[in-house]
Amino acid sequence: MQPELARIADEIGRARRVFTLCHVAPDGDAIGSLLALGGLLRNLGKEVTLACQDLVPAIYAWLPDSAEIVPHGSGGYDLVISLDCSDERRMGNVYEGALRSLPLVNIDHHVTNTYFGTVNWVDSTAVATAQMVLTLAEALGWPLTQPVATCLLTGLVTDTRSFRTANVDAAALRAALQLVEAGVSLSAITRRVLEQRPLASVRLWGEAIGQAILQGDVLWTEVTRPMRQRWSAGENGDSGLANFLSGVREAQIAVVLTERDDGTVDVGMRSAPGYDVSGVALNLGGGGHPQASGCTLHADLPQARERVLAEIQHYLSQRASEAREPSG
Amino acid sequence: MQPELARIADEIGRARRVFTLCHVAPDGDAIGSLLALGGLLRNLGKEVTLACQDLVPAIYAWLPDSAEIVPHGSGGYDLVISLDCSDERRMGNVYEGALRSLPLVNIDHHVTNTYFGTVNWVDSTAVATAQMVLTLAEALGWPLTQPVATCLLTGLVTDTRSFRTANVDAAALRAALQLVEAGVSLSAITRRVLEQRPLASVRLWGEAIGQAILQGDVLWTEVTRPMRQRWSAGENGDSGLANFLSGVREAQIAVVLTERDDGTVDVGMRSAPGYDVSGVALNLGGGGHPQASGCTLHADLPQARERVLAEIQHYLSQRASEAREPSG
Repeated sequence: MQPELARIADEIGRARRVFTLCHVAPDGDAIGSLLALGGLLRNLGKEVTLACQDLVPAIYAWLPDSAEIVPHGSGGYDLVISLDCSDERRMGNVYEGALRSLPLVNIDHHVTNTYFGTVNWVDSTAVATAQMVLTLAEALGWPLTQPVATCLLTGLVTDTRSFRTANVDAAALRAALQLVEAGVSLSAITRRVLEQRPLASVRLWGEAIGQAILQGDVLWTEVTRPMRQRWSAGENGDSGLANFLSGVREAQIAVVLTERDDGTVDVGMRSAPGYDVSGVALNLGGGGHPQASGCTLHADLPQARERVLAEIQHYLSQRASEAREPSG
Repeated sequence: MQPELARIADEIGRARRVFTLCHVAPDGDAIGSLLALGGLLRNLGKEVTLACQDLVPAIYAWLPDSAEIVPHGSGGYDLVISLDCSDERRMGNVYEGALRSLPLVNIDHHVTNTYFGTVNWVDSTAVATAQMVLTLAEALGWPLTQPVATCLLTGLVTDTRSFRTANVDAAALRAALQLVEAGVSLSAITRRVLEQRPLASVRLWGEAIGQAILQGDVLWTEVTRPMRQRWSAGENGDSGLANFLSGVREAQIAVVLTERDDGTVDVGMRSAPGYDVSGVALNLGGGGHPQASGCTLHADLPQARERVLAEIQHYLSQRASEAREPSG
């Protein structure tokens, strides 16, 4: 067993009340990992609080126990476990007060993780934090129930877009197989979290695609508030659009800028293998993976567009000059 | 071993020159299964012709040996093997002349298969004919080379849209795992055959999505010749659009009608679980699976649209009345 797993087992063994949390603006892997670990700990007889600063997106509301995710704990905890958070800031305002003096277990698969916990288990070869939770359950001999397996497969499916990302390897497929063998329907999950979209959101995509602009290797488009209003689409109506645009053969980097109701701009970036947008996102105050990153900018749309495209051009120029001048 | 597999092994054992073919208007499973079986038979020392009536679509041109697929054989064969064809008509005009008097092995996973061969191995629980070819190779102890595994995984990925279709089960994932363990990159295949599209085709999608019409449970759209010309998109520019539209939450059935250069209309239909468009396609002279079927109509676009929508309405009415009057 890896030493981190043994230390995590120790911490959990000592704890009676556990505060588990996932990152702000949660995605399927954040929610899935949180619910799965919560379920596993409850099966061990622990008292568990499931916490997230932001609301569970509607497409994950069907997951077992998702209604129990709260924005505040009630106190009296022995241990905090952070799931899928690459740095302390990503835990949001649920990590506060007395929690800050407790042992903090950091379980995450982001390569940009800052090792902010007292115990840090970071595995960037895992395609999802859910895959790490499955590894943990196996290593510690925790039984896998169907609700837990459902949450884990949701994390695996969303972070890999159903096994399409470049990091999917035999270990990821083996994890999926194990979860399907536990009785979970892969297609039911895929349909719910990846394929189904309201017509309004599809219409919005149609409009955004029509206005996309290819500049060199970069394909970018914007989703404005008026566009969202026209199609009665919420703030998440463009989810997946960046992935879709990253499939355009002529583009190496795809960017979707979404104007939110609070005046900030959400930036989703995707890149082809061989490119890396995680540094661009980091420079803009965000984070993520080489092929999929994002950030939120406190700026209006034209300013945000200018900053993002300039940052990407800077990255591309550096990349080109490094290619021209190999070291050694 | 299943009796059909033993009979197939007998036929192949007796043959020296084998004519292998896949269906007209080939997709990734047709091409992948054809190339994989061809490779396996050549590894056994057989002389193999790979045949298909229609050209290999450009997105499969990178598959090993795809340039060897021909529209005619040279004669002197002992055996014909048909891959992924649900009926004799789907073999097209490559199945002609002296070939018709030879033993014909029919390997297919379509539930609508008509058992047109002298040996018929039809397994509708397989997600792809490629999965059956892998089963055959395993059962007969044929070694799996990397080019063969690449072709098989391409068949598996395209027919399941990377494991998203409702029929994906543990056996399908186990097959994928085996192929990835043979050294094939899943993401390289997925990117090439599912995700990458020319910008022209994405623009065409944008226009077709904008014009899509929701009538009751049916969402339909058309890709006209002027639309294709406007975006310089080929006849396959709309490939995948029907899948995309079938994700619209408000729709149970999605239809894309594509006007081809020869004046015929290609009809792609997709349905939600619990619905079945294969009968509709069959009535219109086509075929397929419950959730994904198609046909080609010799009609202009308005006529084709009217026939298809009427046939779907007929199916939906029947379905509704059957639901109202349960038998027994």
